[in-house]
Amino acid sequence: MEAITHQSKISMENGTKKWRFQAMRNQQQQQQEEAALTTANIRGVLGILMGNLDPEDKRPVVPLSHGDPSAFPCFRTSPAAEDAIVDALKSAKHNHYSPSVGILPARRALADYMNKDLPYKLSPDNVYLTAGCSHAIELALTVLAQPGNNILLPRPGFPYTEAIAASCGFEVRHFDLLPEQGWEVDLEAVEALGDENTVAMVIINPGNPCGNVYSYEHLKKVAETARKLGIIVIADEVYGHMAFGSTPFVPMGVFGSVVPVLTLGSLSKRWIVPGWRMGWLVTNDPTDLLRDSGVVESIKNHLNTPLDPVTFIQAALPRILENTTQDFFSDILNTLRDAADLSYRKIQDIPCITCPQKAEGSMFMLIELNLSDMEDINDDIDFSLKLAREESTFVLPGTTVGMKNWFRISFAVDPATLEDGLERMKAFCLRHAKKQTILN
Amino acid sequence: MEAITHQSKISMENGTKKWRFQAMRNQQQQQQEEAALTTANIRGVLGILMGNLDPEDKRPVVPLSHGDPSAFPCFRTSPAAEDAIVDALKSAKHNHYSPSVGILPARRALADYMNKDLPYKLSPDNVYLTAGCSHAIELALTVLAQPGNNILLPRPGFPYTEAIAASCGFEVRHFDLLPEQGWEVDLEAVEALGDENTVAMVIINPGNPCGNVYSYEHLKKVAETARKLGIIVIADEVYGHMAFGSTPFVPMGVFGSVVPVLTLGSLSKRWIVPGWRMGWLVTNDPTDLLRDSGVVESIKNHLNTPLDPVTFIQAALPRILENTTQDFFSDILNTLRDAADLSYRKIQDIPCITCPQKAEGSMFMLIELNLSDMEDINDDIDFSLKLAREESTFVLPGTTVGMKNWFRISFAVDPATLEDGLERMKAFCLRHAKKQTILN
Repeated sequence: MEAITHQSKISMENGTKKWRFQAMRNQQQQQQEEAALTTANIRGVLGILMGNLDPEDKRPVVPLSHGDPSAFPCFRTSPAAEDAIVDALKSAKHNHYSPSVGILPARRALADYMNKDLPYKLSPDNVYLTAGCSHAIELALTVLAQPGNNILLPRPGFPYTEAIAASCGFEVRHFDLLPEQGWEVDLEAVEALGDENTVAMVIINPGNPCGNVYSYEHLKKVAETARKLGIIVIADEVYGHMAFGSTPFVPMGVFGSVVPVLTLGSLSKRWIVPGWRMGWLVTNDPTDLLRDSGVVESIKNHLNTPLDPVTFIQAALPRILENTTQDFFSDILNTLRDAADLSYRKIQDIPCITCPQKAEGSMFMLIELNLSDMEDINDDIDFSLKLAREESTFVLPGTTVGMKNWFRISFAVDPATLEDGLERMKAFCLRHAKKQTILN
Repeated sequence: MEAITHQSKISMENGTKKWRFQAMRNQQQQQQEEAALTTANIRGVLGILMGNLDPEDKRPVVPLSHGDPSAFPCFRTSPAAEDAIVDALKSAKHNHYSPSVGILPARRALADYMNKDLPYKLSPDNVYLTAGCSHAIELALTVLAQPGNNILLPRPGFPYTEAIAASCGFEVRHFDLLPEQGWEVDLEAVEALGDENTVAMVIINPGNPCGNVYSYEHLKKVAETARKLGIIVIADEVYGHMAFGSTPFVPMGVFGSVVPVLTLGSLSKRWIVPGWRMGWLVTNDPTDLLRDSGVVESIKNHLNTPLDPVTFIQAALPRILENTTQDFFSDILNTLRDAADLSYRKIQDIPCITCPQKAEGSMFMLIELNLSDMEDINDDIDFSLKLAREESTFVLPGTTVGMKNWFRISFAVDPATLEDGLERMKAFCLRHAKKQTILN
């Protein structure tokens, strides 16, 4: 620290001075709150894994832990998207504050984009632009939260949604996704969980962390179940259109006439630009239930803060949505399909772990640990920490997504890195397997 | 609406069906909350003014109501900033999720930028990048809020800060800024208001809505008063360096050894790019009080959400801070100085209104309404609504910033528009003045 020139005359007895803000911080309470937040936080978990690397291991880290492939050249975003941003910026017409709901041309372009898949027409008024899909999750949950309300969330689920639901004051109730049924929603459980204080259920499709894609028929049943309960469906479709298996992607909004749907999405995944923070919340509400019940008004009021997506990125949205080529999308899907195939095949050859279903969408697979086959692994967190330590390979412990003794991999890394990571995982599992497991 | 094809078999008795989320919404409570939010919201007020325009008036609207001059060619941002963004984007290296505190090169560049004016050295660890200064305000207040705590805010003040302080659960206590002393802080009031539950006070410098710039001596007294109370100073310096009068801008962080300072800032104003959402919170904490008391840890934990500034804009930050020319800044300051001079001079000639001090900073002046000189104007809100209706000219009613029967103008519009707006204001005041007022 340099010499303190200006303050030379002011006494410096900080060591003894009583500062009120210090005395007043109930540190224990603060720490408890923070711990609650951090345990449900992917970033926090990654930080812990990173801290557990062996500095002696000079191999590159293999990050199979999270869904951000933008650093790999094979996952570079489309030139059309880059060009649209540059032109919007260079026009100097979009440096202003955004209107709180987003700028009209962008809202209109997004309505058009979604209308291609819907049996009715959205208008720009159904579209609210948000700072990424996370902001859309926060918006949807905040708007619906009231003291005494509960919400139905999937298990496995998305930690950020869990954290926001809890911080909004929702009582959170979990329904299972069923691995033996391709991670479909346990609809009987949903019916049993819902009561007169339930306002909404959340589905994630294509699925994170499971990599599943729900069929038209299953989504229809979800809609009918929600209708029976009289609750809204919040459809997290941040991986929308990222389906590369046999099941095509169907937006939940298709069933908007059966049940009101809040659809959440983003450029982040399909365009591989999570750092652009360009997301949306769409009210699929052809029967005007959300409008008439005041939910729409409440959305507008909650958006009245300056946490909007960057204006020039909004301004680029129409061109991004219109000009990105089908080749870009199909190249990405082909890359993901190959990566899912490779991962699923390789995992069959790794002892002590089981993947119940090959991913058909998103960037993830959920894999079960067979702890009884292993010698010295206590649980999924222990597995993840030791795998980081011994093989410089990161996976996400299943506890983070509500599935103890499972783990999630992202296969959206470049093929050589993926193969390397799976080889390391195999070496790790062989090393930690009971002898009997390997001999069988 | 198109034919609903998929749902043809599903009954459509929405008119009679009971939806739980409807029944459960205590609409009255919801509306009250929303009203509370909206009254303290500049965007909400602008919406109301816009709705009050006379559709018959074909003249262009003169927006003297808010601080966003980016649409005017004379307020175009610097080419260096645009180029830095384009290059960061085109590199395709910055599309990834940001670390929650911001990327290191950007944090380092911002520390260097601030160090030019400080008697000690900040490190990158003192810098947290936020989605605009609003996000920095939210962060600072959230981190310090605890049940039972109170915070001292200036009157006039910034509505967003008021709203966030209230929603964090702070008891808000107001100290006056003194128009007859160049809008300086009423330090005696600060001392009288503070008690054992006070954690922080907020100052805005250069001032919004007053356009004042605090002297080194006054800021030193602020620091000493806060030290006496044992509280943190939150320095909203979103208009930092935008001083064009006789008082130079001094960052509050200069007094970081006297009192811990959280400095909030942004590219929005100095670079005239509010739509870029690139802000920061800086801990001016050379005596490590904020670190030792857990405030720093709490900041990190609260940032563990994906509401970061756009990564490629962060990546451009070092070049933006280093390469923007002094000519760009001085041109902008000259434009603002001329606009402040013009406004102040013209306002002297307008009956029924008084401006106690010419602006020396920011983009604003606060002007008092002399209601007793007017015939048919009830208060500042009535004034603003009728001015919008009759002259298509927007000003911000003082009630929004805690000053009933005052109003705020932004003079950061192009000179022709400013002159036009002030002429319209004069015509309006002449029309609504009592005869005696004009004859005097």
